[in-house]
Amino acid sequence: MAANVDVESAERRIRPYFNFTPVMASSYLNNLTGHNLFFKCENLQKTGSFKGRGAMNMILKAKEDGPVKGVVGWSGGNHGQGVAWAAQECKVPCTIVVPTAAPLKKIDAMKGYGSEVVIVENQMQACTAECEKIVKEQGYTLIDPMNDYTIMSGQGTIAKEFLAQVPDLDAILVSIGGGGLAGGVSKYIKDNKPSCKVFIVEPFGKDLQKSFEAGRRLHEYGLLMDTIADGCRPKAVGDKCFKVMRECCEHTVLSVTDDEIKVAMKLIIERMKLVVEGSAAMGLAAVLKHKEVLNKYTNIGLVLCGGNVDLSVLVGLPDYVEE
Amino acid sequence: MAANVDVESAERRIRPYFNFTPVMASSYLNNLTGHNLFFKCENLQKTGSFKGRGAMNMILKAKEDGPVKGVVGWSGGNHGQGVAWAAQECKVPCTIVVPTAAPLKKIDAMKGYGSEVVIVENQMQACTAECEKIVKEQGYTLIDPMNDYTIMSGQGTIAKEFLAQVPDLDAILVSIGGGGLAGGVSKYIKDNKPSCKVFIVEPFGKDLQKSFEAGRRLHEYGLLMDTIADGCRPKAVGDKCFKVMRECCEHTVLSVTDDEIKVAMKLIIERMKLVVEGSAAMGLAAVLKHKEVLNKYTNIGLVLCGGNVDLSVLVGLPDYVEE
Repeated sequence: MAANVDVESAERRIRPYFNFTPVMASSYLNNLTGHNLFFKCENLQKTGSFKGRGAMNMILKAKEDGPVKGVVGWSGGNHGQGVAWAAQECKVPCTIVVPTAAPLKKIDAMKGYGSEVVIVENQMQACTAECEKIVKEQGYTLIDPMNDYTIMSGQGTIAKEFLAQVPDLDAILVSIGGGGLAGGVSKYIKDNKPSCKVFIVEPFGKDLQKSFEAGRRLHEYGLLMDTIADGCRPKAVGDKCFKVMRECCEHTVLSVTDDEIKVAMKLIIERMKLVVEGSAAMGLAAVLKHKEVLNKYTNIGLVLCGGNVDLSVLVGLPDYVEE
Repeated sequence: MAANVDVESAERRIRPYFNFTPVMASSYLNNLTGHNLFFKCENLQKTGSFKGRGAMNMILKAKEDGPVKGVVGWSGGNHGQGVAWAAQECKVPCTIVVPTAAPLKKIDAMKGYGSEVVIVENQMQACTAECEKIVKEQGYTLIDPMNDYTIMSGQGTIAKEFLAQVPDLDAILVSIGGGGLAGGVSKYIKDNKPSCKVFIVEPFGKDLQKSFEAGRRLHEYGLLMDTIADGCRPKAVGDKCFKVMRECCEHTVLSVTDDEIKVAMKLIIERMKLVVEGSAAMGLAAVLKHKEVLNKYTNIGLVLCGGNVDLSVLVGLPDYVEE
């Protein structure tokens, strides 16, 4: 199945549109953790997150197959901005379906990229139903947030860049929302550097490891979790993503709590001077917590997946306290 | 006089110790301002500001001239961290004299770099007197925050890197505290690319342009201003810095208010995902305000001089409102 993930083609397609984001390091954090940590700065990517990569790959691939009347996606956050931006770059009409809870600033950003915005009830079902309607009535192409091989292929281009920048990575940690990033990254790494292990970092309560052990997703698709890592709210991953991850990721899943994420956010913001959202700090939180799992890995890559955070969130962040 | 500024030697001396900091850009800010803006990210430098460059140049140059018993500097902020860090790297004992108003976190950082910290009354005179005492009694070398050609030479290495990264710069904007950064940068640019103009950005009320016109510094050395740009508090620049700047900088000085700085801070933090302190946002504030002065310059370089800011400051920052 994972054979459908094609990072190389995606990379050729989307390259002209994206920042080859820098990899940064912090001697303070290296000393603190005892690893060489490499941070892939997708918070510095177009639209402030990695999400445009997959969306752009979808749109460009669809255009190769024939005329595209328009695209539609649903999201209250980074995926919506990624789709809206990519559609604008490709001069394709775009509608984003947004749940009522979405921040006004993100809606403004989508409109700023020339997208139409339709606001629906605050549930995944309402969003997907509206998308289906637009696909049916207007002939638009659906850009799924994650559960699609073409999306995974686009997100996987991060791994290709990362390996080119840091060839000696022993492990890569990726945060998990619906599984598009983890699926794409792990497939590329498994194919190109199998000695490098890809670990998934989840918000506590997602139970992905139990799902791996059971061989099936234990939570209902569509449920959302309450976490500061708002890019990681889906409680169940997509079924296609699940298959790829089971094949390509380590089955030991690293859980982190909101408090642990907050501490890691503050460390990155204060020590690296980079603005990161909660989802992006989960990797560092996992390095600080799951020492026994990670102690045999020297060079660890962390994907700072996004930096779209309300500044008011940054005030209450707790300091790291050395043990 | 400015002949004493020697950036090339400084660069050879300090290179092994520093990050060759990246230059970043934002298509949003380019569209907004109508310029190509290039941001030299000294907030990503060791210790979170450019200040270590000058301090390191002082220590290494002193060591070339003979054994160094120790170094002493006074500062409640970035200079103190820069000196403490550079001394640690050079394995030289260090004392930092700190005024009572200094944030505990910065004092902890200095101690973390192995420095001794002496706290004195919250006035520049008390700080300099304590430094003189330590120089006399312990034979330590004084590392002035700015008013020294060797310090200016170290800070000027930023300009050498910047020109190597962006050879087509038409103008560079630097924030002014005591004048070490502006002096070093402007001297290097005047010698190596005189077609590129160096503009000084000051907190409103510093009256540096009037001082240029008068041919002498109008404010008493040692007075401090109340501004969110806490790296730019000295009301008068150093006399050596003043001479260099008068010779090498544009005499049109760009003033910005705290409110304008705050708006620029928020734009950089939200749009570029970079943590910057007030002093570092002054360049963008000046671009947004002094349009008539800058409209003939296409490629404008801005030095993001530091990122050491208390996160609580970020909450109240106002949004940019398009005119």
